[in-house]
Amino acid sequence: MLKVNGARLLNHLDELAKIGRTESSGVTRLSLSKEDLDARRYILELMKHAGLSAHADKVANVIGVLEGISDGGAVASGSHTDTVANGGNLDGCYGVIAAIECAHTMMEKGLTFKHPILVVDFTNEEGVRFPALTGSKYLTGQIGLSDAYAQQDSDGMTMEEALRNSPLRLTEPRAAPYTFDSYVELHIEQGATLDKSKEEIGIVQGIVGVRRYNVTIKGAADHAGTTPLNLRKDSLLAAAKVVVAINKLASEVGRGAVGTVGQLVVSPNKSNVVASEVELTIDFRHARESVLDGCDLLIRKTLKRIALSNNVEVAVSSTVFVPPSKMAPRIVKTIKGTASESGLNYRLMQSGAGHDAMIMSNVTETGMIFVPSRGGNSHSPLEFTEPRALVDGANLLLNVLAKLAS
Amino acid sequence: MLKVNGARLLNHLDELAKIGRTESSGVTRLSLSKEDLDARRYILELMKHAGLSAHADKVANVIGVLEGISDGGAVASGSHTDTVANGGNLDGCYGVIAAIECAHTMMEKGLTFKHPILVVDFTNEEGVRFPALTGSKYLTGQIGLSDAYAQQDSDGMTMEEALRNSPLRLTEPRAAPYTFDSYVELHIEQGATLDKSKEEIGIVQGIVGVRRYNVTIKGAADHAGTTPLNLRKDSLLAAAKVVVAINKLASEVGRGAVGTVGQLVVSPNKSNVVASEVELTIDFRHARESVLDGCDLLIRKTLKRIALSNNVEVAVSSTVFVPPSKMAPRIVKTIKGTASESGLNYRLMQSGAGHDAMIMSNVTETGMIFVPSRGGNSHSPLEFTEPRALVDGANLLLNVLAKLAS
Repeated sequence: MLKVNGARLLNHLDELAKIGRTESSGVTRLSLSKEDLDARRYILELMKHAGLSAHADKVANVIGVLEGISDGGAVASGSHTDTVANGGNLDGCYGVIAAIECAHTMMEKGLTFKHPILVVDFTNEEGVRFPALTGSKYLTGQIGLSDAYAQQDSDGMTMEEALRNSPLRLTEPRAAPYTFDSYVELHIEQGATLDKSKEEIGIVQGIVGVRRYNVTIKGAADHAGTTPLNLRKDSLLAAAKVVVAINKLASEVGRGAVGTVGQLVVSPNKSNVVASEVELTIDFRHARESVLDGCDLLIRKTLKRIALSNNVEVAVSSTVFVPPSKMAPRIVKTIKGTASESGLNYRLMQSGAGHDAMIMSNVTETGMIFVPSRGGNSHSPLEFTEPRALVDGANLLLNVLAKLAS
Repeated sequence: MLKVNGARLLNHLDELAKIGRTESSGVTRLSLSKEDLDARRYILELMKHAGLSAHADKVANVIGVLEGISDGGAVASGSHTDTVANGGNLDGCYGVIAAIECAHTMMEKGLTFKHPILVVDFTNEEGVRFPALTGSKYLTGQIGLSDAYAQQDSDGMTMEEALRNSPLRLTEPRAAPYTFDSYVELHIEQGATLDKSKEEIGIVQGIVGVRRYNVTIKGAADHAGTTPLNLRKDSLLAAAKVVVAINKLASEVGRGAVGTVGQLVVSPNKSNVVASEVELTIDFRHARESVLDGCDLLIRKTLKRIALSNNVEVAVSSTVFVPPSKMAPRIVKTIKGTASESGLNYRLMQSGAGHDAMIMSNVTETGMIFVPSRGGNSHSPLEFTEPRALVDGANLLLNVLAKLAS
């Protein structure tokens, strides 16, 4: 089996983590901030140092190419280096640095392949500042340049403006969209399943779909001492029943369904006043679109029932719908085979979080490889994966890419 | 039966409502603000105009005296003119203006009584700016002047500083504490019981006791997509179960028990993150101390059970305990008899809200009279009571005070 330079991989991860480091040893590189663009310049240099022909495209995707013998579709790998506020140093970064390391190893060993190998650091995967997944959508032609440029952050600054003083030269020696043979993304799990099961590798079969809702519950602000229970229109009591019902619904659906109320705001939010209004969000995920659709009906029915029995008004709006993505059987099979040959034990699993792989799967055969993440920590300075596991994951990616490109 | 000058009563209520009027036709006169002190100056003038010997004491209680023939304890009546932010024009104000109107009528008719009649506009009943009920506590010797002066608002300004540039002259021709024969407070109901039952008068038998708690629930912030339900420590799910359980507990206790979670704050409060921490308040009220004590145990037991079954940590602290107050049987009987003689139908009831009467009941025989409040609106620009009902209530107070003072 081929092997990457593990020490170099870990060293590059450490170097990248210094850009935008926070006081709590986390990393803040919101998309197209100075820190994010500095990191992209670092990634561009790493790619060139690895021997790739590299550039940043019009939306600051950083792309490195190892040319193939034929002119077929590219075998691509990568992820993103933008982060949430005070995020970790592995989410996204690991997939980019590992893909560069794989290409670097291929160059050093003088390996040549039929397909070109494409390494990508996608712009704005996280969606904290601008709507998510811009870079992978642009590279695959799922969003045009003018639409990408028009996206605004909460201060009204457009992506075009944010890129105006970029320290990166934005060029397009090849125009998007590219043609692909396949895409493989390496990532930390962002959950504790592998950490608990002590399995070394997760092979993703699909990325769950997400439906997200905003719910507004309107009751009446009444005096908490003088208003008998049966005369109340208690919006927080109704909201509490929604929170419990969503959890119960996801439990009953089972098969990996998750339902979460993570955001809830109460008005007027005073200890001695019955709450007049509550706004909350529902996030519901499942790997099958038919299940998500069935749950959509059940959620709306549950909200109506709670509104009626609690004498409050409930309004619901759907804010996000991302359909589930299926990973390609050919890629899953290649990863399984390679993991077995490498002596790595693995689990077939769903990804509960969205990734650039989700966007790539719309245009090419796609797969994902997970490594364990201690305690499932994610989007947090606590993100940690054993160095040994990081190197194992990169070695697996290297051999998978070599097979796909051959 | 004696009758007040109804037109004058309503006119004075309207005049008072102009001081601190808000854009939404509410009233904002936070304690010892310019508006509150302006209102107190107006009340002082009204008392003098009514023929009372009147002054503002060291904490800005405005006190008017109609001397009695003997030097016995005073028969007192009044309430407060400070308001919450954007409150109504009746809460407190009605009790003060009506008591002045009663004394004014007595003076005009040349009535003389054995006991002196004391009319009081208490300082800071609401407790929005400074800790509540300062004026009645000071007048009755339940708080000393230096302690009252040391109370601070959220900006760190003391009550003494707030009074420094008072347009009122603060004098004490009689030093607190006063001696009392009795105290009767007239107030809008602040609930919808009388409005629904179409009864004209509420005669208060007791003021419910209050226990208030701060509850902190600590779980773990996890990714809403990647964390299976059974691995979560969802603090908002646990909090929702607390909200539902408190409502259920109050329902099961019955007999007027009310339990409310009106304040609830979620961290980090993001739609795609399982909530790590929730802070909420519990407000529980009942007319009997033994019931409040029993519920205290049940609440703590419920919190422990929810903590265990949801894998979260729950900390609870008791923040407020006001024991229930009993109104004096002699005063209740006098009000009942007088209401019957006046042809007013009445209901015996508990007050779910605190009042200066609660403080007065610690030192003298105390009673309260409620008039209906449309829709139970309270602490809101929507406060409204039919003019006819306001005059009925004042007439009842007049005859009750005359009987008690004779």
